[in-house]
Amino acid sequence: MLDVKTYPAEALRAFTERLLALAGLPGEDAALAADVLLAADLRGIDSHGVARLRGYYDVLRSGQVNPTPELRVTRETLTTATVDGDNGLGLVVGPRANELAMDKALDAGSGWVAVRNTNHFGIAGYYVLQALERDLIGWAMTNSSALVAPLFGTGRMLGTNPLAIAFPGHEEPPIVIDFATSAVAFGKIEIARRKGQPIPEGWAIDPGGNPATDPQAVYDGGALLPVGSTRELGGHKGYALGMMVDVLSAVLSGANWGPFAPAFAIEQVPPGQVGVGIGHFFGALRIDGFIDPDEFKRQIDHLVRTFRATPPVPGTDGPLIPGDPERAAEAARRADGIPLLPAVAADLEALAVETGVPL
Amino acid sequence: MLDVKTYPAEALRAFTERLLALAGLPGEDAALAADVLLAADLRGIDSHGVARLRGYYDVLRSGQVNPTPELRVTRETLTTATVDGDNGLGLVVGPRANELAMDKALDAGSGWVAVRNTNHFGIAGYYVLQALERDLIGWAMTNSSALVAPLFGTGRMLGTNPLAIAFPGHEEPPIVIDFATSAVAFGKIEIARRKGQPIPEGWAIDPGGNPATDPQAVYDGGALLPVGSTRELGGHKGYALGMMVDVLSAVLSGANWGPFAPAFAIEQVPPGQVGVGIGHFFGALRIDGFIDPDEFKRQIDHLVRTFRATPPVPGTDGPLIPGDPERAAEAARRADGIPLLPAVAADLEALAVETGVPL
Repeated sequence: MLDVKTYPAEALRAFTERLLALAGLPGEDAALAADVLLAADLRGIDSHGVARLRGYYDVLRSGQVNPTPELRVTRETLTTATVDGDNGLGLVVGPRANELAMDKALDAGSGWVAVRNTNHFGIAGYYVLQALERDLIGWAMTNSSALVAPLFGTGRMLGTNPLAIAFPGHEEPPIVIDFATSAVAFGKIEIARRKGQPIPEGWAIDPGGNPATDPQAVYDGGALLPVGSTRELGGHKGYALGMMVDVLSAVLSGANWGPFAPAFAIEQVPPGQVGVGIGHFFGALRIDGFIDPDEFKRQIDHLVRTFRATPPVPGTDGPLIPGDPERAAEAARRADGIPLLPAVAADLEALAVETGVPL
Repeated sequence: MLDVKTYPAEALRAFTERLLALAGLPGEDAALAADVLLAADLRGIDSHGVARLRGYYDVLRSGQVNPTPELRVTRETLTTATVDGDNGLGLVVGPRANELAMDKALDAGSGWVAVRNTNHFGIAGYYVLQALERDLIGWAMTNSSALVAPLFGTGRMLGTNPLAIAFPGHEEPPIVIDFATSAVAFGKIEIARRKGQPIPEGWAIDPGGNPATDPQAVYDGGALLPVGSTRELGGHKGYALGMMVDVLSAVLSGANWGPFAPAFAIEQVPPGQVGVGIGHFFGALRIDGFIDPDEFKRQIDHLVRTFRATPPVPGTDGPLIPGDPERAAEAARRADGIPLLPAVAADLEALAVETGVPL
């Protein structure tokens, strides 16, 4: 058991906000970005939360990311727009662009916003939860630096390109779908390497394109596989889905797609840039543009209960509803605090000393 | 080698059109439905083409499906609508609803149409190809009768619920994504059973929820698995994606979702109906609502060439672009005719004798 330290969510949020303000973000933006970052920690997606605060702080301080971006709509119709994020933090650019998509949906039934010249936007789930608060069906996608091979290819050509969408229930909690289009998150490769354990076939390939069972092979130039893993199990489907997210987020907006997407907090960008920054894609649909929202929510309740009642596969507790694990994490962490790995806690404590902002 | 008979596409199309007209479809609708059906045969998706003509003919003649539906828009905003298909053929209802989504997109930047009280709509790819002809990014989804288990569940709770989307290129062919959200199509189970061969783990479970390697287990009450197959390989992702398609197609429209979706050409419907018929969901986005379409297409060309140039995995020819296999099939079949399995050919010949319509 690692020596895990636990912090109250509010303390981490306040610390994050002050750090980001110190790095040059206007007060409102610092608060917003802290909310997005903490949403990841609360929902148990530790890799996307305060574990990245040091990285964000550093790229803001070094000027690699613009702390005071001026967002610009470069094209617009009644229900679509492209936003140039002026190389701001995705944690600030993303929520503002999502807001625009939701505003358009409230006006005209649906709203769709592609974003370029932006950076990592936290968890995709954050954005679709925002839409739920306005009684909208929200969609969120983003591309990211390449880690995933196309089926039958050996290179890193696509990011883990997540897709999120959420549907509100009435008495039951909402269905909140949020998943990366790779077979597994890179974090699982990291954990296996740290523990010196092999990884299952279907997660990754080595630099020669052969199935990797040694996690080190991924670090040595291998790649993750798309969900579906192999041709036999449907790897072409995960590959196509990852490409869909890439095109909507990056080609439609004028950002860098596929292998050209710059990495987070890395000064070097891949040669031959084809756009600016990375890209996101947000959508919102008004439920009452299709059906009575009460009827919709009653059916979602019925659906949730029906799926929960499916007889379980032996050795399992039966089907989950998408969003269940994150909801359980959030309930526990709001009550008991957010556990941080020693390395992450040490990082934050060092930031606190360095900046004089108490944690 | 089976004794495969080959027919010119135009002969099959004309035969299909005349048969559907004989079954009561107005002339224009018969021609439209024949186009949709033949699109499947041309693109090599044999299970969704004229192999189903006997079934369509029978349900139309028996009155289970309405040959002269009056489509009704039950709700509408500038960019969204729900269409009640009046229990018509999905091959007729689908294209008309898709048309409405495309019209809305041309007016307002985007258009989204949910459809209820409809039936099987052929291949999802047909609809997004229609959108390409208008220089739109098209989306198409449908639910269908339950065959797929949710991860950790033993029952058939979701259809194979396909998702399609297409993006136009300039000099390169378009990216045409069209895949079922199950690990494999049911047809692969059928083929293995006919050949007396085992199926790989990850395709299906037996009625007790255990991994099935005997294809017969699926017929005996087992189920297909969602893409991703197992928890370890990301089966929760395919499950979530299948649920997304189900909610957008069926809950949002007021159709039957999940296990309540009625089967094609089966008189018995699952008890406890929660809506009417099955559901589809169509979307369209105007490219110039986001970016200059020429620039978009040039980047798609660049992307297509970049992915094709990825070094191949040993033993493969390297990555395909989504839509490549269907394009290759279409080129071959337009030139050489459409090969039909003996059982399908016999079925059509019998229909020809029965109706006096020459094949």
